Amino acid sequence: MIPTPYLLYLGHSDDPLGIKTSRGLAHFVPELCVGEFRHDDCPLTLGIERLTIEEARARGANTLVLGIANPGGSMGQALVEDALVAIALGMHVAAGLHHRLREVPALVEAARAAGVTLFDVRDAPADLPVGSGIKRAGRRLLTVGTDCSVGKMYTSIALQRAMQAAGLAADFRATGQTGILIAGRGIAVDAVVADFISGAVEVLSPARSDDGWDVIEGQGSLFHPSFAGVSTGLLHGAQPDALVLCHEAGRPHMRGLPHFAVPGLAECLEANLRTARLTNPAVQAVGVCINTSRLGEVEALAFCADAGQRLGLPCTDPVRFGVTPIIEEIARCFAPSPLATTVSA
Amino acid sequence: MIPTPYLLYLGHSDDPLGIKTSRGLAHFVPELCVGEFRHDDCPLTLGIERLTIEEARARGANTLVLGIANPGGSMGQALVEDALVAIALGMHVAAGLHHRLREVPALVEAARAAGVTLFDVRDAPADLPVGSGIKRAGRRLLTVGTDCSVGKMYTSIALQRAMQAAGLAADFRATGQTGILIAGRGIAVDAVVADFISGAVEVLSPARSDDGWDVIEGQGSLFHPSFAGVSTGLLHGAQPDALVLCHEAGRPHMRGLPHFAVPGLAECLEANLRTARLTNPAVQAVGVCINTSRLGEVEALAFCADAGQRLGLPCTDPVRFGVTPIIEEIARCFAPSPLATTVSA
Repeated sequence: MIPTPYLLYLGHSDDPLGIKTSRGLAHFVPELCVGEFRHDDCPLTLGIERLTIEEARARGANTLVLGIANPGGSMGQALVEDALVAIALGMHVAAGLHHRLREVPALVEAARAAGVTLFDVRDAPADLPVGSGIKRAGRRLLTVGTDCSVGKMYTSIALQRAMQAAGLAADFRATGQTGILIAGRGIAVDAVVADFISGAVEVLSPARSDDGWDVIEGQGSLFHPSFAGVSTGLLHGAQPDALVLCHEAGRPHMRGLPHFAVPGLAECLEANLRTARLTNPAVQAVGVCINTSRLGEVEALAFCADAGQRLGLPCTDPVRFGVTPIIEEIARCFAPSPLATTVSA
Repeated sequence: MIPTPYLLYLGHSDDPLGIKTSRGLAHFVPELCVGEFRHDDCPLTLGIERLTIEEARARGANTLVLGIANPGGSMGQALVEDALVAIALGMHVAAGLHHRLREVPALVEAARAAGVTLFDVRDAPADLPVGSGIKRAGRRLLTVGTDCSVGKMYTSIALQRAMQAAGLAADFRATGQTGILIAGRGIAVDAVVADFISGAVEVLSPARSDDGWDVIEGQGSLFHPSFAGVSTGLLHGAQPDALVLCHEAGRPHMRGLPHFAVPGLAECLEANLRTARLTNPAVQAVGVCINTSRLGEVEALAFCADAGQRLGLPCTDPVRFGVTPIIEEIARCFAPSPLATTVSA
């Protein structure tokens, strides 16, 4: 396990979507975060205290979390220099970039000298199997999206917490760096060798016999030409009983690709259901979650109402309006059968 | 480059589909193969001379090609012991398994002592980009399949050679171990990190300005729950102008998965066209290639005629009947426009 508390790194970032790991930690586990570190040219903030690395260390921060991401996951020189400062102060460093901390000799050497650890949370377990497609016990919900970075992780954790609050057994199964840092475990499915995507998800979400749910964090989008392979393998490995479609209202184009339009909600949902049916023909859509952060309150309500009506599903912004309608839909769709009720009564 | 000629390894294999690398080399580059090596319990043969490793070395074999595959690509102890014999005789060793030669300390040590090289042909190039989806110049044909191991590589090479024979510029772009050993280059797309599948194919098949074709070897199947992620990323990275669907007549179930049925040809073709349209809306199907090895000649002709009529496409067994009808369909679908003819006249 990665020693907490964390100092959350923003560095020189100016892409609000690129800091989603730091933002996710500040939101979901604020009790584990002493503050944020950013340079003067960084226009972003997590709304928590801004600290220098030295100040954060003095307040007890044990790990610098390089919670930024960019397509492809490379690591810049400024980031390495900041990490060296933290290491020299005795802090561990954690990152989920494709470019690994252990592949930067300066960091490896400094960490060894300081007696601290580099945590590459995207490293996959050894000896993953290829996917079998064999049906396993238990129920699974997977979040899918019209694009990357539309709120799949946020939605997944909100749903899992709401299920628990409603008395259901439910586990969050993290598939990306942020989710893994929040949950303390998981597999970064976009970082496994391509032949093992669905197999990794079968390992991540094993059979469960308690009538509870695994809420599995989706990745990418079937409509993103860079990452649809990952999304496809994730759908097949998850064998979802339930899908929740995630979308950002008003996004102008696919993330990182100005030449690609965002798909329509109905088209995207149908493609996901069609793909999911290969390993679970009984898959159902149970809701739609919209990131309405570009809209005012009235517009946001109208957007959700309209989308929900068109798709015939509960539709909400989980940040603004919560996920209760989707929890109710799940209860309705997956009610214990009368027979099961009789048996357990 | 890997030193030739090769000794082709069958070992203890008893799965005819599992020896497709050795079989492909014996078929497509027989001039580079001195013979096959198999143990007494191996019921298979490539139809070339059976030699001991010592005999092969005496006849000039420079590399032992471990041309066998199994789901997941692991490496057994018997295989390692045979490779050690070859190394002790001064031969290089090449393999395309997921489990790498360089990860077996006994092989690494023996190779160093003998001054020979271990070739892991599945190793991907460093620093692959994520896919951009940006349209690039030139024409591309991709083979897709109802399942793994149905003849996509065979079909790809047959099409590329027939195109060249017809006077077209055409390159074979290998995406698997066998193709790479035959072509001398390529990228094993199932071995790249999942986020980079489509990006790897963009690198493998760069823009070309000679009005010629890249014939790209497909992998897996959109309907194989272990490997559909790879197939999806390959479709998106290839941006195919033309698809050829490959299928084995009479296959009882998906490879390695007795609980999964093989999809119908029409359903499979439509799913591939739909997926391909994300990065090339103009994609067209130009033919169907059937592996009819389980059928007699009359049945094989009838199967192809029936499938071709149902799909409205030329349909052939490339081994038995050649690929001429598909080459003619490509000429018809991709004829130079009248304007282009005028300009070049």
